[in-house]
Amino acid sequence: MRYTATLLAAAGLICSGSAAPPTRPGPGAGGPGSKNGMRNFIYIVPDGYGQHSQTMARDYAMLLPPNTTASNPGPAGFHLAADLLVVGTVRTWASDNLITDSAASGTAFACGYKSYNDAVGITPDGLPVGSILETAHLAGFKTGLVVTSTINHATPAVYASHAENRDSYEAIAAQEIGYSHPFGSTVDILMGGGRCYFKPQNDSTSCRSDDVDLFSFAASKGFTVMQDRAAFDELNLGENAPLPYIGLFNDDQMMYEIDRSREPEKEPSLLEMVETALVSLDKAVSGRTPPQSGKPGKPAGPTDKGYFIMIEASRIDHAGHANDAAAHLYETLMYNEVMDFVRNWIDEHPDTMMMSAADHECGGLTTNGFDPEPLQAAQHSLEYLADLWSEYNGTNIRGFFVDTILAGAGLSGVLSDEEIDALLAAGEDEILSTLPDLTAELAGVNWSTGGHTAGDINLHAYAAGDRWRELKADLAGNHDNTELPRYIEKVLGLDMDATTRKLREAAPFVAPADAAKKTKRNVKTRDGHEHGHAHMH
Amino acid sequence: MRYTATLLAAAGLICSGSAAPPTRPGPGAGGPGSKNGMRNFIYIVPDGYGQHSQTMARDYAMLLPPNTTASNPGPAGFHLAADLLVVGTVRTWASDNLITDSAASGTAFACGYKSYNDAVGITPDGLPVGSILETAHLAGFKTGLVVTSTINHATPAVYASHAENRDSYEAIAAQEIGYSHPFGSTVDILMGGGRCYFKPQNDSTSCRSDDVDLFSFAASKGFTVMQDRAAFDELNLGENAPLPYIGLFNDDQMMYEIDRSREPEKEPSLLEMVETALVSLDKAVSGRTPPQSGKPGKPAGPTDKGYFIMIEASRIDHAGHANDAAAHLYETLMYNEVMDFVRNWIDEHPDTMMMSAADHECGGLTTNGFDPEPLQAAQHSLEYLADLWSEYNGTNIRGFFVDTILAGAGLSGVLSDEEIDALLAAGEDEILSTLPDLTAELAGVNWSTGGHTAGDINLHAYAAGDRWRELKADLAGNHDNTELPRYIEKVLGLDMDATTRKLREAAPFVAPADAAKKTKRNVKTRDGHEHGHAHMH
Repeated sequence: MRYTATLLAAAGLICSGSAAPPTRPGPGAGGPGSKNGMRNFIYIVPDGYGQHSQTMARDYAMLLPPNTTASNPGPAGFHLAADLLVVGTVRTWASDNLITDSAASGTAFACGYKSYNDAVGITPDGLPVGSILETAHLAGFKTGLVVTSTINHATPAVYASHAENRDSYEAIAAQEIGYSHPFGSTVDILMGGGRCYFKPQNDSTSCRSDDVDLFSFAASKGFTVMQDRAAFDELNLGENAPLPYIGLFNDDQMMYEIDRSREPEKEPSLLEMVETALVSLDKAVSGRTPPQSGKPGKPAGPTDKGYFIMIEASRIDHAGHANDAAAHLYETLMYNEVMDFVRNWIDEHPDTMMMSAADHECGGLTTNGFDPEPLQAAQHSLEYLADLWSEYNGTNIRGFFVDTILAGAGLSGVLSDEEIDALLAAGEDEILSTLPDLTAELAGVNWSTGGHTAGDINLHAYAAGDRWRELKADLAGNHDNTELPRYIEKVLGLDMDATTRKLREAAPFVAPADAAKKTKRNVKTRDGHEHGHAHMH
Repeated sequence: MRYTATLLAAAGLICSGSAAPPTRPGPGAGGPGSKNGMRNFIYIVPDGYGQHSQTMARDYAMLLPPNTTASNPGPAGFHLAADLLVVGTVRTWASDNLITDSAASGTAFACGYKSYNDAVGITPDGLPVGSILETAHLAGFKTGLVVTSTINHATPAVYASHAENRDSYEAIAAQEIGYSHPFGSTVDILMGGGRCYFKPQNDSTSCRSDDVDLFSFAASKGFTVMQDRAAFDELNLGENAPLPYIGLFNDDQMMYEIDRSREPEKEPSLLEMVETALVSLDKAVSGRTPPQSGKPGKPAGPTDKGYFIMIEASRIDHAGHANDAAAHLYETLMYNEVMDFVRNWIDEHPDTMMMSAADHECGGLTTNGFDPEPLQAAQHSLEYLADLWSEYNGTNIRGFFVDTILAGAGLSGVLSDEEIDALLAAGEDEILSTLPDLTAELAGVNWSTGGHTAGDINLHAYAAGDRWRELKADLAGNHDNTELPRYIEKVLGLDMDATTRKLREAAPFVAPADAAKKTKRNVKTRDGHEHGHAHMH
């Protein structure tokens, strides 16, 4: 017997979905700390990142040059950026399942309410609940969503849209840009993938089922619209990036970092997007936005409010679903780079606070006899290689497999000629399920599932100076994920329940779940199942 | 290629083994907090306890009655005792392997030095390093070791002995009781299993290879000696327990809690031993020890020093090695009971501080589709059932297997008649490897290994009142396991390096590794391999 929604409900273990404030104290209720003076909040979601993701990334970095030089601080002190910022752990379960998906967990940490898997910013009774981002926007804060998934994927979706089902991608995109959100536009910066959802169906690269042109709508509302890396580069890492703007750099998910880092001209990295977003948010709230002649609708000057931004290292999760150890590693290292950048940013902007927690673990990763070399040898994600394999039209199939696919996966010399022949004879499905297993075996990496697990995840936080000790004292312990936005709410002096009341006055506007069925492109993105490319096992 | 001692050494990633104090700051170096007034320190080791161990135990407790009643605080707030006390995470690797064993990790968190797997209180160069317990003893503190493994198992061993190899059980026992330790007796309370190592070889239940009678030696030095539950009960949970005393309640490891809880007359629980030890330590350092007429050598009165005690929930690890989910669960729940008791104890004794961290994860546990019912149905550990199976002399083998073994494992009705026949025909090894797999499959529990993994583990801590916030601020983050005793050292005002110098003046006394070979009883206890009963797969 598995515990389902019915069972949990019978056991009294589902939240009511009422908009009344929770009666349980959130983290830090016993000691509020010195939150005065905090204007800005940065929330970072490493999607699908478990405790072993960090251990594997640290062990990898520790064992490879140049970390073995004499100038290294030494093994006992070796750490990655996120290590320094661990303050506690988080319980993640959804109202209908011990294993949450990104939508239910996101609804918890964006809005403060438990809900069912698939729910986007609504409670189990189908009513919308306001997010911390929407609340910050209503209070006059600038806001941003910067991700490497599609921008209308579950985690960014819960901050600026409300839907019965996360698969309502078209409706979610329309809400995020303000086309169909009752508050209009609530997000000043949107960056990530999912470009196809913003183009009308007559565009050959569209994945909409209607004629709505969300990029044109955005431009009409004053957004700078970017659809490629060249446009992004014109922002000069935020030095020339007045709000609002939207930059979507891939029709689907953005590239895995392991692939992108070898073709950086194709897309910006998460770190580059984060730097750009923070610099432009800082300028916007500091009144340093340069005048933009001839561009109507840009915010004109300073505000007494700060900003809220959600940054997602989205594809740690996708690589976990694919059991792709090398891709998982690169995404986790990029998350640590972002954590390092944000920590330094906060030291220079001490009116800013950071919190970071995954939505759930993914893949059931453990390491046992870890060897970094097979992961170092890998040049590409399995998704990238599967695309190459699907697209190959040549006649030297065996040579292409050995020289491009196996070599790209870091598996040169691993298989005998007979094994290669047998694998080629077995066909694509067998190939695509064998490659990750080979890498895992060689690297001492174990995956227990292609879905999520129920495990706790780590909570990280940072503030500058003396506030750092206060923040740690506030946030130590094990928290339910619904408690996390309540802390941000207190820090920024916001009222999420007021947002919920305003949303419900404007309701019903929740997107029908079956809208997803009309989506003409089959992008599988439901957590617990497969993400990205359907042929990736 | 796996990373071995040689590779790590070549990479400059092994500590020097020098007795010089580490140059890196330990936790809290940037903010010492208000440690004044702390007299006592309780260190708790949940051996082999990973983050998923806690998630599984919490989900189990949450989903079973009586936690589903109206008086339950509700799902978002549901937690176990250890949850409240999480403050950070710990890196665990040994000097010669990313995956540590209990000896190397114990040497790190007892003595503050990285060493190789198997090392007990010595550095890779073979020289002893002083433990926090030995240091506390030299400074006039009372000390205790309370475990559920054999008392000379690696984790307790590192606090009061020094050996090249953890398998030197006889030499370790002799050091722990003060027979062959250069400082004499350093431990005032020893409780756990391992009785056979304290009896001379002419005793039929001895596992020594010499005539040394450590119980008689202990008695001659003033120890009260207990060898069964009846003697323990006379202590009346510490109300009648002047120091020093030794209580060993099993020749081998103590019973798994899942078994012991059904036969509590056989052995005390870890919680009972902890309560007894803390009450008697408190009396000893508070001067409230009642006079003991006719018993020479008891400490006579109060001291201005407090106490240090290490408590180990030892067999979480053993159940992980055996991939025995039900036994692992019961051990983890007992650990949480001890954490709850200690937290309340500290509230009543605010001059006491607690820290708790595992030595490593064990089993690569993840949960995916967890169902508590198969674990609730289990009545015994697989070790217990394997003993019953081995000892069965009757003729109704099939009936015994179905009614006792399968029923005891909570697997009644799971196998068809044909499957039962096939299993019986396949023999004992197949039976013993099939039962944990069946339970894991039914309960949605995944084990990736029968050994340890490299994953980080959680750090917990507690202090009463305002000191709790200071402690959290000190200890948040990710720490190397070598940093942990340095914090205790500062709190109690001790000098571990002085102890190391004294030990080395008294050296050489490290037990020869080949002493283990003389051990006449084959108790496999090396981490990474099998613990307890050799026939438990």
